[in-house]
Amino acid sequence: MLLEQINRPEDLKRLSLTELETLAGEIRQFLIEKLSVTGGHLSSNLGVVELTIALHTLFHSPYDKFIFDVGHQAYVHKILTGRKDKFDTLRKYKGLCGFVKRSESEHDVWEAGHSSTSLSAAMGMAMARDLKGEHNKVVAVIGDGAITGGMALEAMNHIGHEKKNIMVILNDNEMSIAPNVGAIHNYLSKIRSDRHYLKAKEEVEHLLKKIPAIGGTLAKTAEKLKDSLKYFVLNGVWFEELGFTYIGPVDGHNLPVLLDTLKQAEKVNGPVLVHVVTTKGKGYTPAEQDSHSWHGPGPYKIESGQVLKSVGPPMYTEIFGNTLIELAEKDSRIVAVTPAMPGGSGLLKFAKQFPNRMIDVGIAEQHAATLCAGLASEGLKPVFAVYSTFLQRAYDQVVHDICRPKLNVTFAIDRAGFVGPDGETHHGAYDISFLRTLPNMVLMMPKDERELRDMMQTALEYNDGPIAYRYPRNSGTGASIVEAPKAIPIGTWETLRDGDYAAVLAVGPMVQVAEEAAEQLAKEGINLRVVNARFIKPLDEAYLLQLASESIPIITMEEGSIQGGLGSSVVEFYAAKSVVGLHVQIMGIPDYFVEHGSVKEQREEVGLTTQNLVTEVKKLVPRKRQRA
Amino acid sequence: MLLEQINRPEDLKRLSLTELETLAGEIRQFLIEKLSVTGGHLSSNLGVVELTIALHTLFHSPYDKFIFDVGHQAYVHKILTGRKDKFDTLRKYKGLCGFVKRSESEHDVWEAGHSSTSLSAAMGMAMARDLKGEHNKVVAVIGDGAITGGMALEAMNHIGHEKKNIMVILNDNEMSIAPNVGAIHNYLSKIRSDRHYLKAKEEVEHLLKKIPAIGGTLAKTAEKLKDSLKYFVLNGVWFEELGFTYIGPVDGHNLPVLLDTLKQAEKVNGPVLVHVVTTKGKGYTPAEQDSHSWHGPGPYKIESGQVLKSVGPPMYTEIFGNTLIELAEKDSRIVAVTPAMPGGSGLLKFAKQFPNRMIDVGIAEQHAATLCAGLASEGLKPVFAVYSTFLQRAYDQVVHDICRPKLNVTFAIDRAGFVGPDGETHHGAYDISFLRTLPNMVLMMPKDERELRDMMQTALEYNDGPIAYRYPRNSGTGASIVEAPKAIPIGTWETLRDGDYAAVLAVGPMVQVAEEAAEQLAKEGINLRVVNARFIKPLDEAYLLQLASESIPIITMEEGSIQGGLGSSVVEFYAAKSVVGLHVQIMGIPDYFVEHGSVKEQREEVGLTTQNLVTEVKKLVPRKRQRA
Repeated sequence: MLLEQINRPEDLKRLSLTELETLAGEIRQFLIEKLSVTGGHLSSNLGVVELTIALHTLFHSPYDKFIFDVGHQAYVHKILTGRKDKFDTLRKYKGLCGFVKRSESEHDVWEAGHSSTSLSAAMGMAMARDLKGEHNKVVAVIGDGAITGGMALEAMNHIGHEKKNIMVILNDNEMSIAPNVGAIHNYLSKIRSDRHYLKAKEEVEHLLKKIPAIGGTLAKTAEKLKDSLKYFVLNGVWFEELGFTYIGPVDGHNLPVLLDTLKQAEKVNGPVLVHVVTTKGKGYTPAEQDSHSWHGPGPYKIESGQVLKSVGPPMYTEIFGNTLIELAEKDSRIVAVTPAMPGGSGLLKFAKQFPNRMIDVGIAEQHAATLCAGLASEGLKPVFAVYSTFLQRAYDQVVHDICRPKLNVTFAIDRAGFVGPDGETHHGAYDISFLRTLPNMVLMMPKDERELRDMMQTALEYNDGPIAYRYPRNSGTGASIVEAPKAIPIGTWETLRDGDYAAVLAVGPMVQVAEEAAEQLAKEGINLRVVNARFIKPLDEAYLLQLASESIPIITMEEGSIQGGLGSSVVEFYAAKSVVGLHVQIMGIPDYFVEHGSVKEQREEVGLTTQNLVTEVKKLVPRKRQRA
Repeated sequence: MLLEQINRPEDLKRLSLTELETLAGEIRQFLIEKLSVTGGHLSSNLGVVELTIALHTLFHSPYDKFIFDVGHQAYVHKILTGRKDKFDTLRKYKGLCGFVKRSESEHDVWEAGHSSTSLSAAMGMAMARDLKGEHNKVVAVIGDGAITGGMALEAMNHIGHEKKNIMVILNDNEMSIAPNVGAIHNYLSKIRSDRHYLKAKEEVEHLLKKIPAIGGTLAKTAEKLKDSLKYFVLNGVWFEELGFTYIGPVDGHNLPVLLDTLKQAEKVNGPVLVHVVTTKGKGYTPAEQDSHSWHGPGPYKIESGQVLKSVGPPMYTEIFGNTLIELAEKDSRIVAVTPAMPGGSGLLKFAKQFPNRMIDVGIAEQHAATLCAGLASEGLKPVFAVYSTFLQRAYDQVVHDICRPKLNVTFAIDRAGFVGPDGETHHGAYDISFLRTLPNMVLMMPKDERELRDMMQTALEYNDGPIAYRYPRNSGTGASIVEAPKAIPIGTWETLRDGDYAAVLAVGPMVQVAEEAAEQLAKEGINLRVVNARFIKPLDEAYLLQLASESIPIITMEEGSIQGGLGSSVVEFYAAKSVVGLHVQIMGIPDYFVEHGSVKEQREEVGLTTQNLVTEVKKLVPRKRQRA
């Protein structure tokens, strides 16, 4: 095994081209085997084996800076930079991170989990290099999905203007996670299909010679004509007009061609874009045939390509997708909007049934949000299906284009709370803080899948501005979903279990945690009241005042940032009402970024568990003594 | 006066071309006169007089939808839609809004104050139209600065793909507020300078005929060659490749040509982009000569073009700019980054002195933030100078690219708190809420200009992650700024005035308000303690515990959203420390969007005044009685 001898990038430089090609095969085998046990981003990594080998063979990391956009396609980079022995712990608690991570290696100079950041980072590093008078290369690897994200386009506009030495490798696999959409994508397809024209280049030059020599008044015209012919011999004019030298398209699985092309690109002065065409899942047939499902599979059987699925109640995502179809059948105003996540958001069936009412905008959360505002301004009921962490990208649009003009946009916020193995870049930890502090927003979270359906109905019937429901990545609780959904009165909580020792105001999955704790405490004679605080905004003010009048100690429990969350809102409310003397304790995600692991481990780390709630309740000074 | 007869768009349709041209002159005169008294966005509106007349003459608002990007160039639209009599109240409290505003008129179908939203809104309206089977036109007017904002590029990518009937009018005045930067801008310049080539079109066609007829294997090649020649006869290939039909460039002050061009554009099936070249300040010489200064002037003398400036202490913006030069002279790591606001952020002198260390990225807040992360990752000390309201655009980048990897980026947040006449789209009301809830962030606000300088020094010396100082749009207090700035220990507050009746924890300009209130109260024998709570994060926990131990009633006062703000943070802290029984009252901006007016009026509306603080303090139950 050659792979055994590779512990750092320098080791590659000793290998022959044939050996590098052998190594590529070994790395593929390594990835297929390791990920069959751990799960992980298989397809995208199989797609960049040769590219990553080529980069580490030609350049000198960490002196030269490699910036992987999104960062989940850096497994090969990790293998080549001394981390192959850690792949058994991939995406596990305290194990190898599934993304690039600065604390893991000096070769990880930029970390990301969200897309489209690499070009801005590259520009920053290139400008820093030039200011410091250094000479290292800066290479950004970005997918054809990520490059259409607004911030990447902003960066290209800047890079092309400033003419910095930056190499952008456009890893074009015709996919982001779902098949790509958008005009730039169409343009790239055109270039790819144009490849056969390349060989005609000489013919054209021959043809040009047949145009008679021109002088006089026509000279300038002829000059422009000649200039315009670069559009023929050169592909990638769109990039050229942005100030980049375009090279490509080149087969990303042909190592000798890749190495030659990168050498050529290295010589370019100013920004250069190398268009590399790769195949997601390359070398593993099941993944090549269905790269969408194989984007980030769990453990699987190598031979059969069968992904091992856990059994249990349906996921919230699925409930959302199915219920939206039910609602949309009865209400033609409903339109679903997704930023490149039709599958992840459970909308594939919806898309099939309502192709005209399903809008996939590509990786473009900002545009998606304001598009929803435009739809709503004309009387439709857009549902923006988005992961909590990606909604962060549209914060300003939520404030400025939706909350301020009070437009009827529904936010279906998936992956709220901990997300498990994707870790710190992907948790839905901040949506409560950044949404509940905005005027005109209504924010809900269901305790189970039945309540999710009710909240969807609530949102549909609500016509007084934006409304959001957030739900976790997990499976539901198994609650019955056969009843037709019915609207919940805005701003109302429900008592699930009575008790006078203390009251826990829980939201989402924390309701179940609270019920379990109450069950345990009851055995010890402690009666914990369990309240489903399903409206995070507006609060159930009458309920809160009632609690205050009882002087009952309160614990709030949410899978979201303590800072600015539901508990914060509760203590703000009591301050506004001059309620003094009440014990309010806030349980949630503390003030740091929680790393990857299982959701269970993440909850344990921060104390969002039944056991910890039991402990905290027991610590409370009983009400009678408190009063005395 | 023709203008007197124009009360709604229909009135235009009766006018001859000559009369329309006369009307344009009258509108210019009207704007110059009215704005000389009220101030306002003069230059951009003088630039779109003919364009707006043309739109309202040809199309049928509100059936056809006009979407003005940014919305401050809609004065002419307001004049033509029945609001000319309200111009004396422009941008005044309860008066005519300086931006498009849905509540003002049925002709205002989209409202905005931030740039680059119009194309997404247009797409939403066009999709809604098509779903509803309607046939109205959707026309977006967007500047050459705004079109390079990421969300506008995202929208173009989507519009070009979906081929919806949308007319985009690119109002190219070679400026956003500052002169534009970026590759797309360069591209537009090229097109403009290419205009003289247009007349060569026929010559080229003549030339092409000279190419001999081709058959056989060369046929395909010849076809592509022919195709490539569209790059010659057509300008705007960059837009064409994005799926738009490009028409232009056309002189935006030539009404007959404009009308003809728009008629031609109306016939295009699918998205069309009309490139209109205008001059900012057209028709008023002082504004034409210096459109930067005349972007949004205060009142001015028409004859001399002299803008009337208020006298008083220097603005915080100016102090920031001058101090940054002082610091940068001694520390070569400092780099300033602005998203198209070099003037507004007080950085023009800095740019002159350190041209290599001044980075204007254009309207691209997302890219700017992550660019800072890239610079910081290589050991520089980037200072991102940005208005609070525009920082909202970079929320995800702040979370994901800066706070999470804990990079040493400094945020210089201008226009924090109320901004006065720009109103609800521009207030810096949410930055405290969205920044103080993020891990690793340090957030400060100075009580005066001297403290701003100290905070800038603090930020420079701090090397443990992101740090921010926010400061108001106003003038400083007149504090001495001759001393060299010195760092303030992180997380420390200062007592400015002792007192035991109650303590006010004030930040920024509220410190002065609190001191004035204390002064008044002292005359009545009430001793109000005034605390400069200059660190919003981290809080001065020792100070807070001390206050708790004294059981002194607390009032927090901030010019920022009550929801999630400093006061919220204080009550969260006491909840975390199980401090029960303390009176904490939160004063700040309540849970709605405060409209335009003067800062004074805005503060009065929400009770952030000396008088209101006095009243609130007097309402407090004195500590002795409270204890009993």
